[in-house]
Amino acid sequence: MVTHEPGREDILKAAERIQPYLHRTPVLTCSAVDHLTGATIYFKCENFQKAGAFKSRGATNAVFSIDPYDLKQGVATHSSGNHAAALARAARLKHIPAYIVMPENSSKVKIAAVKTYGGIITFCKPTLEAREEKLNEVLNETNAFEIHPYNNYAIIAGQATTALELIEDQPGLDIIIAPVGGGGLLSGTALAAHYFSSATKVIAAEPSGADDAYQSFYQKRLVPSVNPDTIADGLRTSLGTLTFPIIRRLVSDVITVNDQATIEAMKFVWERMKIIIEPSSAVALAIVIKHKHRFEGQKIGIILSGGNVDLMHLPWM
Amino acid sequence: MVTHEPGREDILKAAERIQPYLHRTPVLTCSAVDHLTGATIYFKCENFQKAGAFKSRGATNAVFSIDPYDLKQGVATHSSGNHAAALARAARLKHIPAYIVMPENSSKVKIAAVKTYGGIITFCKPTLEAREEKLNEVLNETNAFEIHPYNNYAIIAGQATTALELIEDQPGLDIIIAPVGGGGLLSGTALAAHYFSSATKVIAAEPSGADDAYQSFYQKRLVPSVNPDTIADGLRTSLGTLTFPIIRRLVSDVITVNDQATIEAMKFVWERMKIIIEPSSAVALAIVIKHKHRFEGQKIGIILSGGNVDLMHLPWM
Repeated sequence: MVTHEPGREDILKAAERIQPYLHRTPVLTCSAVDHLTGATIYFKCENFQKAGAFKSRGATNAVFSIDPYDLKQGVATHSSGNHAAALARAARLKHIPAYIVMPENSSKVKIAAVKTYGGIITFCKPTLEAREEKLNEVLNETNAFEIHPYNNYAIIAGQATTALELIEDQPGLDIIIAPVGGGGLLSGTALAAHYFSSATKVIAAEPSGADDAYQSFYQKRLVPSVNPDTIADGLRTSLGTLTFPIIRRLVSDVITVNDQATIEAMKFVWERMKIIIEPSSAVALAIVIKHKHRFEGQKIGIILSGGNVDLMHLPWM
Repeated sequence: MVTHEPGREDILKAAERIQPYLHRTPVLTCSAVDHLTGATIYFKCENFQKAGAFKSRGATNAVFSIDPYDLKQGVATHSSGNHAAALARAARLKHIPAYIVMPENSSKVKIAAVKTYGGIITFCKPTLEAREEKLNEVLNETNAFEIHPYNNYAIIAGQATTALELIEDQPGLDIIIAPVGGGGLLSGTALAAHYFSSATKVIAAEPSGADDAYQSFYQKRLVPSVNPDTIADGLRTSLGTLTFPIIRRLVSDVITVNDQATIEAMKFVWERMKIIIEPSSAVALAIVIKHKHRFEGQKIGIILSGGNVDLMHLPWM
């Protein structure tokens, strides 16, 4: 298990460790997107990842790198989203139970995904306090090992493998843009760029209705996410004490965009690329479209973080 | 231009001719689909093709193989769907006009696609008679060259390149399943399998509400499509005089399925593969799910014909 900020070797070891269990997702291009933005964009498609999101990387790396003795009673987390399914899947690969605390208003699709992978769900009220309280109860009852969705170095090392693969498949990128919620993907992306493509800048994309990373980055202190209001359900959480220092040191900028622009970018990708991405994935393209002059002419990697969408409730309907 | 039933060389020449202008689309697999069906399925993803459908292959092959003298006044067709956009795009590549007769009830998305590629649209009443009459008027006025959507050997040779690529990328398939509307894709698929993978059977998938190919195949005579009733808007047309003889000779079976099964298959692909396919594309997977025992244990290529869907009106909403 990575108990320190992941270095070059930790990221390479994570890549090797998770490789048998996950997809090496493709990097796609789209002439309509390039025409629209004036940039050359390479999409790293984690929407095609196992369990539908990059979260499988971190969860698998964590579960497979922790001492098996510590995992005898299983793993546990609270999550309303993709980390829940990813952790349930990773635990099943290890033949250990996964206890998932989910807010009672979680989407049916996300609940079904956790069940598909055999996760044991406990519901709670939809507040951070209720989630933490219920998780503590579950941890006390089960002696399971907590795997936090992002504030965990093994998770960060796992998420870093996304950008590592992108850099390997598409060297010479000027910029990589990753969405930011709790900062697991973003801090991992920043570390991967730092170690494997140091000339590549990393920029964070964040919904303006949940701009705690933007506030934290510019106020140079951890500002929590209070009453986030965005359709990008994966990006409502606050940065963590482990992710923020990496982001502050290695990320070039945090740029925000409103939900309307995100929905338009999402629909453009569905219509023209014929791939399904969730709102959190569209935030990065939305900032490139909005700030066209800033990104024009550059080679940009965009991490499409996931593709788990409730097909009965699309944001443009 | 191919003026006879396409042979091995015609298909290879078509592939070479269209290659600079089109995508070599990927062949995807999905463990959830294989788990559901008990078969091993390779999806040839023409939903990622230029203009969003395999139709670009035939249209491009036709436009680029006809004597330029004959094309001086442009090309024309009647189509409510993907052939219209594909022909408009191919004509633009050749810098000639494309006159498209479209029923006035065509979907906004399809109309927009034709306009995107510079097609010159004339609307007509939504009957076959009105379409043919209006097309004749347009042909008389413009002296454009008619490119029929499927009853044309150059079109068939172009569509055959889909299965050619699938066979090259995934040799040893037991079966290839293609959807059937007018039979351009199906007859091309049958020819490609015949010439390049003779041990591979070709099976047609057809909506039960538009089962003219099923009727024609088993009655051994061309039975027209009358009042077709299916959400698979690409599969409502009748077989043609050029496509039927090839299908009768080289296709092993035609299997029908109802729209409910097609919608479920389509939603399964969206949810699990995270790719956007149109209803016509889902018919083939629907028959494999419905007739599980017939297909279990086999290596099956499925041609996903296109991905042009009106995202405001999804069939499961």
